[in-house]
Amino acid sequence: MSDKKKILIVNGANLNLTGQREQSIYGKQDFDSFLNALRQEFADKCQIDYYQSNIEGEIVNALQAFKGDTVIINAGGYTHTSVVIRDAVSAISIPCIEVHISNLFARETFRHVSLLSPVCKGTITGFGLEGYRLAVSAALKQG
Amino acid sequence: MSDKKKILIVNGANLNLTGQREQSIYGKQDFDSFLNALRQEFADKCQIDYYQSNIEGEIVNALQAFKGDTVIINAGGYTHTSVVIRDAVSAISIPCIEVHISNLFARETFRHVSLLSPVCKGTITGFGLEGYRLAVSAALKQG
Amino acid sequence: MSDKKKILIVNGANLNLTGQREQSIYGKQDFDSFLNALRQEFADKCQIDYYQSNIEGEIVNALQAFKGDTVIINAGGYTHTSVVIRDAVSAISIPCIEVHISNLFARETFRHVSLLSPVCKGTITGFGLEGYRLAVSAALKQG
Amino acid sequence: MSDKKKILIVNGANLNLTGQREQSIYGKQDFDSFLNALRQEFADKCQIDYYQSNIEGEIVNALQAFKGDTVIINAGGYTHTSVVIRDAVSAISIPCIEVHISNLFARETFRHVSLLSPVCKGTITGFGLEGYRLAVSAALKQG
Amino acid sequence: MSDKKKILIVNGANLNLTGQREQSIYGKQDFDSFLNALRQEFADKCQIDYYQSNIEGEIVNALQAFKGDTVIINAGGYTHTSVVIRDAVSAISIPCIEVHISNLFARETFRHVSLLSPVCKGTITGFGLEGYRLAVSAALKQG
Amino acid sequence: MSDKKKILIVNGANLNLTGQREQSIYGKQDFDSFLNALRQEFADKCQIDYYQSNIEGEIVNALQAFKGDTVIINAGGYTHTSVVIRDAVSAISIPCIEVHISNLFARETFRHVSLLSPVCKGTITGFGLEGYRLAVSAALKQG
Amino acid sequence: MSDKKKILIVNGANLNLTGQREQSIYGKQDFDSFLNALRQEFADKCQIDYYQSNIEGEIVNALQAFKGDTVIINAGGYTHTSVVIRDAVSAISIPCIEVHISNLFARETFRHVSLLSPVCKGTITGFGLEGYRLAVSAALKQG
Amino acid sequence: MSDKKKILIVNGANLNLTGQREQSIYGKQDFDSFLNALRQEFADKCQIDYYQSNIEGEIVNALQAFKGDTVIINAGGYTHTSVVIRDAVSAISIPCIEVHISNLFARETFRHVSLLSPVCKGTITGFGLEGYRLAVSAALKQG
Amino acid sequence: MSDKKKILIVNGANLNLTGQREQSIYGKQDFDSFLNALRQEFADKCQIDYYQSNIEGEIVNALQAFKGDTVIINAGGYTHTSVVIRDAVSAISIPCIEVHISNLFARETFRHVSLLSPVCKGTITGFGLEGYRLAVSAALKQG
Amino acid sequence: MSDKKKILIVNGANLNLTGQREQSIYGKQDFDSFLNALRQEFADKCQIDYYQSNIEGEIVNALQAFKGDTVIINAGGYTHTSVVIRDAVSAISIPCIEVHISNLFARETFRHVSLLSPVCKGTITGFGLEGYRLAVSAALKQG
Amino acid sequence: MSDKKKILIVNGANLNLTGQREQSIYGKQDFDSFLNALRQEFADKCQIDYYQSNIEGEIVNALQAFKGDTVIINAGGYTHTSVVIRDAVSAISIPCIEVHISNLFARETFRHVSLLSPVCKGTITGFGLEGYRLAVSAALKQG
Amino acid sequence: MSDKKKILIVNGANLNLTGQREQSIYGKQDFDSFLNALRQEFADKCQIDYYQSNIEGEIVNALQAFKGDTVIINAGGYTHTSVVIRDAVSAISIPCIEVHISNLFARETFRHVSLLSPVCKGTITGFGLEGYRLAVSAALKQG
Repeated sequence: MSDKKKILIVNGANLNLTGQREQSIYGKQDFDSFLNALRQEFADKCQIDYYQSNIEGEIVNALQAFKGDTVIINAGGYTHTSVVIRDAVSAISIPCIEVHISNLFARETFRHVSLLSPVCKGTITGFGLEGYRLAVSAALKQG
Repeated sequence: MSDKKKILIVNGANLNLTGQREQSIYGKQDFDSFLNALRQEFADKCQIDYYQSNIEGEIVNALQAFKGDTVIINAGGYTHTSVVIRDAVSAISIPCIEVHISNLFARETFRHVSLLSPVCKGTITGFGLEGYRLAVSAALKQG
Repeated sequence: MSDKKKILIVNGANLNLTGQREQSIYGKQDFDSFLNALRQEFADKCQIDYYQSNIEGEIVNALQAFKGDTVIINAGGYTHTSVVIRDAVSAISIPCIEVHISNLFARETFRHVSLLSPVCKGTITGFGLEGYRLAVSAALKQG
Repeated sequence: MSDKKKILIVNGANLNLTGQREQSIYGKQDFDSFLNALRQEFADKCQIDYYQSNIEGEIVNALQAFKGDTVIINAGGYTHTSVVIRDAVSAISIPCIEVHISNLFARETFRHVSLLSPVCKGTITGFGLEGYRLAVSAALKQG
Repeated sequence: MSDKKKILIVNGANLNLTGQREQSIYGKQDFDSFLNALRQEFADKCQIDYYQSNIEGEIVNALQAFKGDTVIINAGGYTHTSVVIRDAVSAISIPCIEVHISNLFARETFRHVSLLSPVCKGTITGFGLEGYRLAVSAALKQG
Repeated sequence: MSDKKKILIVNGANLNLTGQREQSIYGKQDFDSFLNALRQEFADKCQIDYYQSNIEGEIVNALQAFKGDTVIINAGGYTHTSVVIRDAVSAISIPCIEVHISNLFARETFRHVSLLSPVCKGTITGFGLEGYRLAVSAALKQG
Repeated sequence: MSDKKKILIVNGANLNLTGQREQSIYGKQDFDSFLNALRQEFADKCQIDYYQSNIEGEIVNALQAFKGDTVIINAGGYTHTSVVIRDAVSAISIPCIEVHISNLFARETFRHVSLLSPVCKGTITGFGLEGYRLAVSAALKQG
Repeated sequence: MSDKKKILIVNGANLNLTGQREQSIYGKQDFDSFLNALRQEFADKCQIDYYQSNIEGEIVNALQAFKGDTVIINAGGYTHTSVVIRDAVSAISIPCIEVHISNLFARETFRHVSLLSPVCKGTITGFGLEGYRLAVSAALKQG
Repeated sequence: MSDKKKILIVNGANLNLTGQREQSIYGKQDFDSFLNALRQEFADKCQIDYYQSNIEGEIVNALQAFKGDTVIINAGGYTHTSVVIRDAVSAISIPCIEVHISNLFARETFRHVSLLSPVCKGTITGFGLEGYRLAVSAALKQG
Repeated sequence: MSDKKKILIVNGANLNLTGQREQSIYGKQDFDSFLNALRQEFADKCQIDYYQSNIEGEIVNALQAFKGDTVIINAGGYTHTSVVIRDAVSAISIPCIEVHISNLFARETFRHVSLLSPVCKGTITGFGLEGYRLAVSAALKQG
Repeated sequence: MSDKKKILIVNGANLNLTGQREQSIYGKQDFDSFLNALRQEFADKCQIDYYQSNIEGEIVNALQAFKGDTVIINAGGYTHTSVVIRDAVSAISIPCIEVHISNLFARETFRHVSLLSPVCKGTITGFGLEGYRLAVSAALKQG
Repeated sequence: MSDKKKILIVNGANLNLTGQREQSIYGKQDFDSFLNALRQEFADKCQIDYYQSNIEGEIVNALQAFKGDTVIINAGGYTHTSVVIRDAVSAISIPCIEVHISNLFARETFRHVSLLSPVCKGTITGFGLEGYRLAVSAALKQG
């Protein structure tokens, strides 16, 4: 029986298009191939689950359903508007790490405020898909 | 054929966790057992339907579909962000009563403003689950 | 010797005119006759004292002087401006329930903020004089 | 039996000092001698009652108690903070005319907003005590 | 040779329509007939000149050109936006009295601020055309 | 094989009630009959697909799935709150035209700002259902 | 005797330069040749008058003078600052349609607010000169 | 005949509860015993009068009535809302020193602004009842 | 045939009064005599045209009509309100230099923001009429 | 070996000019002679160290380096901008008392907010150099 | 000759106290021992220089002087106030990564805005000293 | 002995990089060669001292130390944040002229406000290094 850590990566709205849309902002790599590489790199240290939805409340459902060690969440556009995802993060007793692909602080003003940051353990912004790898690395370091 | 009033209680996001999450804020009682007691107390006066969803648009659907006398709504985190639930409350011709378990005015600033209050008949805040009982009592008094 | 609960209803400025002024907002029933009915309905459960003043500081005095179980307060226009009534509510160790006859959230913007709400146990808004009855009911439930 | 109009002049806080305090702002004439002259000038057209108080709620009391044709009100510093005097002006069915001795718009920013103006018939600002005479003249013109 | 005072009434944009447009706000009397009556009433005390323009800069021109004792100005919609009329009022050494027909403070928020008030002697608001008569009366009292 | 343009009309929350709810704002015509007439009028020039949902994320899904020439979108209440629909509009490479049935600028303040407008080609507001016809007309003119 | 509708197109400041200035924003077509084509297209349905001025008050004059069925107005830079054009639109009893060539919502913040929109029937933004054609089309549909 | 200085200490709303209410904020010492000690310490240098009221206008009355050398004022909750106490401080020609028991700047935001500070000579905040002693010491130093 | 540069100085509202009005702010020298001296000093280097108007739209006209090398503009009070002059500056392809006689930043807050500055090459503020000389000097240096 | 308290007075930017600059604001006494008198007055009760710097970070250094009982700090202009001095005050475990020579609340708005006040024990404002003496007196009273 | 990457870690004000001050926020580990471990871990991949100063301008100097591949900067309290460090980051052509030990978004509001974030490549917040390790890891991945 | 004027040019943070950094904003010329040319051009009229520092407080020191006729100051990024440089400019009795190389009003919003402008004689913005030459020219003109 395995004692590897269990991590859930949650991607919010429009992040299923990563690698296709607005490549100057989000880069050219698609998420699936990145995820495969990530799982391989950390295969002996953790199990990485993945969930993506464009629907706010389904993300709440996924957070409530998860039984594991750490959540890595990139809520996409919901980052700036969703009280209910924030409430779900607060409600579950699992530490969450917030990731953003692009440097939100260099974009439109309404992207500068995250409702999730105050209830997450930490935030990693601007490093492209590499940010997820840093998050997994941070998740493994903690407790 | 019954002439009892028909009431719909709608609970929004994360309220399915009541009794489990953040008990210092939301209390220890789970909603289901409370609802059973409530239905028994008012069994001869009204029929109480119940709907819960974490998905904003499904709450809109439920409001549009309801044919009855009064809606009692606790939209959870959507209270502060949802124009569409407000629009649904305005669109249907059934009076709505807003309930909140905790005293929102003693919490974070973004919880002080409700988009629903201006289009509801009245609001009951801060009395825990007891607030739903007060709301049913108010619903029975009107008209 | 009685062991009934002792409740104080405090009405602030211009609420002595209820039933006379702006009936489309405040209704047609005068407060005195409503109060009589309320006392009768709850006669075996609690003693209901009543105090009304148009003078802010006299309301502070009344709050400081009260020795009982619960305060039900409708501060009228002082709701939105009075730091000193708020301080008095904080200073005494008796739980306070805030009531408003009309739905303040559907009126002028300056009526949307209550300085009292954050220091009260709960708030009941928009149910007309019925709101006081709900408050008494809530007061009897607690402790 | 007289059919003269009945007018009430209400002066708020610190206006009992007119003629003494800050003469560069409020002028040198004391209000009592001005009032005598005013009453004589209009003796055959109206009866002018007068009330002054430094206490907000007492002004509310005076407004509620007045039975006459027009109120001329200079609420002094309460102009900018008193929801309850505004509510009293709204509650009574007598037209009110707002007067200010100095030009408030040329003074501190917090004196630029009057809570009373929106519920008064009209406002006269900046003409010194002469403003009260203009207000009486306007009161006699209406209805 | 006359020693009567010389007063200029300046009306700004759309005030040429008074008596025609939005009668619920501005009343039914047209300005010309009112002006004739006003001139007659004060014929032995002052000469009343009149100027109306819909063009902001022409009002500046008129203010600069006037050689007399008092300006009575109702700048209409320019009241809320015109720095240049304000500058013209400041630039000339003639006292100006501001008049508004309707109670601006009971209308849209952008009508609550007047750029002219701080540089005028006084302001008369909400008395309909009667406000001009009060202004002439005030003009004759001063100096 | 057809070379007609392909247009998708997307209606957001509560717009399924058009013709029923708040007729003073939204008019009496129901959308389905209007859509039929619209399709007939433009039958030889374009194919008009239609999608309605009360769920924010499903609208994102629909936008991502569409393969055609122009999107005409009325996001309803989501117009003012949805970063994710905005992101979807930006992400797809198809021009979008924004339509609103009522004149939003004459309603509540929170309806004055559209998150979608800056990323749409153009916006048509206030012409009732006729606005959709103007949008189709505009869509056919471009490119 | 004609029973064609009579439409006035009013263009405000700097719109006489359309086709010359900042072509990336306003396009390359000059307004005169566009207007000719527009008149021809709708020759049997309406008479289209045209007025352009860089002077705010002259636009007010033109609006007051027009006797016809519909005004189509693009006030240019005055859109964001002119209370007096707004007042003129309110004062006349003719429906006005607001047009903007460029997508104002994608430009500087001070261009996002129109003082005219709340008093116009509808607004068409971002379709270039085509917007005027849509407006004429809408004008013919109404009434 | 004495030539000792005459000082008035004015305490505003709820300060009669000092030593009883919220001891973590206001300390445990009651004001009366503190005042006795203060009078004894400075007995040969000044006479210390004392006035406390929960009623705003009575504080205005007390300030107007005082004939002496210095006022030491802690207006309690009125500090943040009272234009009329500010006006009274400005109106009398006696220097006022403002004292606050707790460090207001470390409490709720609405306690960070004092309407009195700009018209007082100086302000002493955060030293508990000791602040009054520092104020008396400062009063004796001046003039 | 001359190859001297051609410069246009545009003065806006009330600047025709320079030397007369508010000399403590604008100085005592009248603009005409200053302009003569300026023309003489730079006679061999440039031709200096001059235009002044109190009418916003006429300044737009003047800017559109000018065919030369540099505009030096002091829009007076229009500096802070005129989108249309800003648009005209943007529309013409001639560099503009903004001049202000007084130090606007040391005056009323509404004079601190210039709508013109962002679209001008540079701004010279606070040096009195000397500012125009510096602007001509700068104009001759460029290109 | 001494058991006198050890106090550090820290003066920030431009306070080395006290007695020279802007005497109407800061008074005529130079700080050095005042400090000598202060040390003599309290010679048997405490040792008073003194540090002045115009450089923000050097003040941080001085605070970090001090080993004693109380800091009395007047950060001058850094009061309103320096997060790092605030952080240093929080970081060291020594109580700090804030002093300001002039009444900041009667000066420019940007001087009304102190970043240091919330983390200091108390604040003394407006008593000139006397404020430092009051602060020493307060420092000796505590613990 | 080495081809290892050269990284500069810059720590701003009060970060020399890490491990000592406010351990609940910043943790117990001192920076020097952490830095040693970090250098060892990455010894074969990069050279890590270190600079700390409490003085804003010295940090600017250090940034200007550095010749290497990546800067990792934690400006401490200067993060929220320093335009000049931002300008230095922009001025040098070396990518910068921003690190914060604590979760700034869960602290005081003034710590939520970073002037540096918009000009840095990315930001890592809330992971304690571990954040620096993640930053080095990210630095090695790029280019 | 010389009677030439003595001028100090003070350059703030990052201005030592002029000619190197961000050439599209600040130009290609380095300051030293420009300064040499400037000194030569005005050699017979004034002595030009020069001081540059990246450290805010050292600029304060330099301003306090200067004994001469005029200061020309470009505080760089400190322009927007430094109360202490502003205080130093106010404290010394020497007129200061503010210069900025780029047009700040066309850059980020936080660069639009200068704390120095209100206390300087005048400001010259947007003319590149030429701005310093204009400032010297202005300095020689005054008094």
